[in-house]
Amino acid sequence: MARRAYIFNSIERIFRIFGYQPIETPAMENLDTLMGKYGEEGDKLLFKILNSGNFLNGIDGEHLSPDDPAGLSTKICEKGLRYDLTVPFARYVVQHRNDINFPFKRYQIQPVWRADRPQKGRYREFYQCDVDIIGSSSLLNELELIEIIDKVFEGFGVDIIIKINNRKILAGIVEILGERSKLNEITTAIDKIEKIGIEGVSRELREGGVSESSIQKMQPIINLSGSTEEKLDTLSDVLSESESGMAGVKEMIRLFEYLGTYKFKGQIELDLTLARGLNYYTGAIIEVLSKEIKIGSICGGGRYDDLTGIFGLKDVSGVGVSFGADRIYDVLEQLDLYPDAVKTGTRLLFVNFGEAEEKHILGILPKFRDAGIASEIYPDYAKLKKQMTYANQKGIPFVALVGEKEINNNILSLKDMESGGQEELSVNDAIDLILTRYVK
Amino acid sequence: MARRAYIFNSIERIFRIFGYQPIETPAMENLDTLMGKYGEEGDKLLFKILNSGNFLNGIDGEHLSPDDPAGLSTKICEKGLRYDLTVPFARYVVQHRNDINFPFKRYQIQPVWRADRPQKGRYREFYQCDVDIIGSSSLLNELELIEIIDKVFEGFGVDIIIKINNRKILAGIVEILGERSKLNEITTAIDKIEKIGIEGVSRELREGGVSESSIQKMQPIINLSGSTEEKLDTLSDVLSESESGMAGVKEMIRLFEYLGTYKFKGQIELDLTLARGLNYYTGAIIEVLSKEIKIGSICGGGRYDDLTGIFGLKDVSGVGVSFGADRIYDVLEQLDLYPDAVKTGTRLLFVNFGEAEEKHILGILPKFRDAGIASEIYPDYAKLKKQMTYANQKGIPFVALVGEKEINNNILSLKDMESGGQEELSVNDAIDLILTRYVK
Repeated sequence: MARRAYIFNSIERIFRIFGYQPIETPAMENLDTLMGKYGEEGDKLLFKILNSGNFLNGIDGEHLSPDDPAGLSTKICEKGLRYDLTVPFARYVVQHRNDINFPFKRYQIQPVWRADRPQKGRYREFYQCDVDIIGSSSLLNELELIEIIDKVFEGFGVDIIIKINNRKILAGIVEILGERSKLNEITTAIDKIEKIGIEGVSRELREGGVSESSIQKMQPIINLSGSTEEKLDTLSDVLSESESGMAGVKEMIRLFEYLGTYKFKGQIELDLTLARGLNYYTGAIIEVLSKEIKIGSICGGGRYDDLTGIFGLKDVSGVGVSFGADRIYDVLEQLDLYPDAVKTGTRLLFVNFGEAEEKHILGILPKFRDAGIASEIYPDYAKLKKQMTYANQKGIPFVALVGEKEINNNILSLKDMESGGQEELSVNDAIDLILTRYVK
Repeated sequence: MARRAYIFNSIERIFRIFGYQPIETPAMENLDTLMGKYGEEGDKLLFKILNSGNFLNGIDGEHLSPDDPAGLSTKICEKGLRYDLTVPFARYVVQHRNDINFPFKRYQIQPVWRADRPQKGRYREFYQCDVDIIGSSSLLNELELIEIIDKVFEGFGVDIIIKINNRKILAGIVEILGERSKLNEITTAIDKIEKIGIEGVSRELREGGVSESSIQKMQPIINLSGSTEEKLDTLSDVLSESESGMAGVKEMIRLFEYLGTYKFKGQIELDLTLARGLNYYTGAIIEVLSKEIKIGSICGGGRYDDLTGIFGLKDVSGVGVSFGADRIYDVLEQLDLYPDAVKTGTRLLFVNFGEAEEKHILGILPKFRDAGIASEIYPDYAKLKKQMTYANQKGIPFVALVGEKEINNNILSLKDMESGGQEELSVNDAIDLILTRYVK
């Protein structure tokens, strides 16, 4: 929990510095807002909420047949739990279109629910962390999101590669191959290149009905090497006949010009094999990988030109990325990058020997807390061993022992639980020592 | 959202300084964990989750009758959304009893759901904010929670009264009146004294079957005036025959001794009319009121000796309080106590006149962000009026105008949106000015 809070607080701080506002949407959405947005599989994974009150009221007996659970469920459930943050965001934008100040810069960090069978690394409830700017088609927004990504991972101390591509380029490639109708199949297949290699992708394309000559022609384009400039030069030639392709190339030229004005900590590259599975992306697509930990994408997103169209608001372009909190959690864990400050809560436990000692401790304890040191007194007059075990199990790094001698000399004996060492210190010196070790 | 975050962050910071750890529990609990814990009315207000997959599988046709929705719902729903944080906490403690390091100090800030008809001030989803220490019967814990309350509201700048009573004293009063069987009715009636007055309480007691002589005898006890010491002295006499009553008096004497060792910002008083409706309280009860805003309890709680008993873990005493986030929100709003820092997000908007200006701005913008000033550049080359409207509607206090003159002199024209004044400043002076006004 404390580590997750560290991740979200760090990300949130960056979002705010860039002028993004937090929004939250209710956990429950109308089912008709959610249904049909995540494919057939997604519909099955939606949690549905039974209508309150007499949910069978007005339902004909004939509908109460065990043969049509899906049909009955739409009659007895009006609401469902949100499945991601994107669809509720689109619904929110459309619903509040008249109150929203466009371009609308928002972030949202909330749990989502999916009726997956629970298994390692896959939970029925998990957090998503999305940041979007909607109502502006300027590439400054792509630049800004990449700056945010860079700053977030610089803050965490994670070395990253930021891969960028553009759906219009992919569409252009498909177009000049004469396979325009297969755009979705081709992006889905290319999306798997990291996992299954170029051979696997070719096989999938073949099975998907893409012609052998197209597959052969596509390979060298996808595998294009050289600098970003060289890649974009080649693409300008290859795609010169495709309007969409050339639009994508121009966007990338402009975006890389923008990116050139900043020094980024992370490595940024144009990766023509980057496809991202989601169908609603229409422009730039972005994916972030840890250089050291092979765990897949830890952040990703892209531009969408018509996310709100399904809810009746046409032609509102936006761009956004989503930070994968669970994977970031694992990366920080594996690289041991959590600051000491989040590794434990309480820094100092006062052992409680009895009434007189407790009274003395109550006089000095607030000084530690006022100095920002999370501190406790053991609430019961328990055996020393029990109190030490408590400190140990809670991972408290310092224990203060205050007995008769310490009271008379107005000091405390401070035990360092890690080294086992113990020294007699004044209150102020003890505060300094703990603060030096654990700067809040 | 930003204001609620301010409230929770402030409270959380205090919780941590006192050594409490955050926990979260899943939104969904098994329905049998929730049912029967909140009374008949509560059961009706639980949101139930339809089982995923074929929820009608294995259900006899005869159960599919429109006449027994409650019965059917238990067959087609295994899970429900949490209704409060207390029951999930008790379930959590029992489930993790072998891993928890007692005394267990935890806080929990999460939404809860109730199928109330939505109306002003009553939402179907709202946050609760609970702090508890469980596994210790020491009155140090009551002291600590009162310290936390005091520090939280001192931080907010809200003047408070902390009212304290003890259920054992109430039980003692009822006992010496010979009305032991009516304890719940009597506490429920006394709980309404603020709303309906002593006359109203008497009427309720009469209707509840409490004898006229008991009502007459009870009044002067409940209305006892004088210092805390005098009240407790009188109670010692009145309750001398009641074991439970005397135990309560002793607890209060000890607690007020503890409280006497600290200087509190808030006013603390023993209030014998304080009852708190919930049945699970068994010792000290606490309630906090704003001195200035009459909005009812803004924080409350108490000691419970058997919260986990319903889940099979007996004799684990705990004490906790819950901060009423929605009411605190209103109090801070009405007293205008939100710091400037939370009143708006972005502090500075750079107007975007075109490509050359944008390029210059991209060079200086990071300096503002690095200084901790939330800053934006308008992403499109829109008309000045549109960009100013954007700043206005978003409540951005400063707008930077950077045209040819400013670029050549390496300055910016900073417009104060509140006063309307405008001055030419270097980047560093602009940063200083904004920071002086809005210290982060």
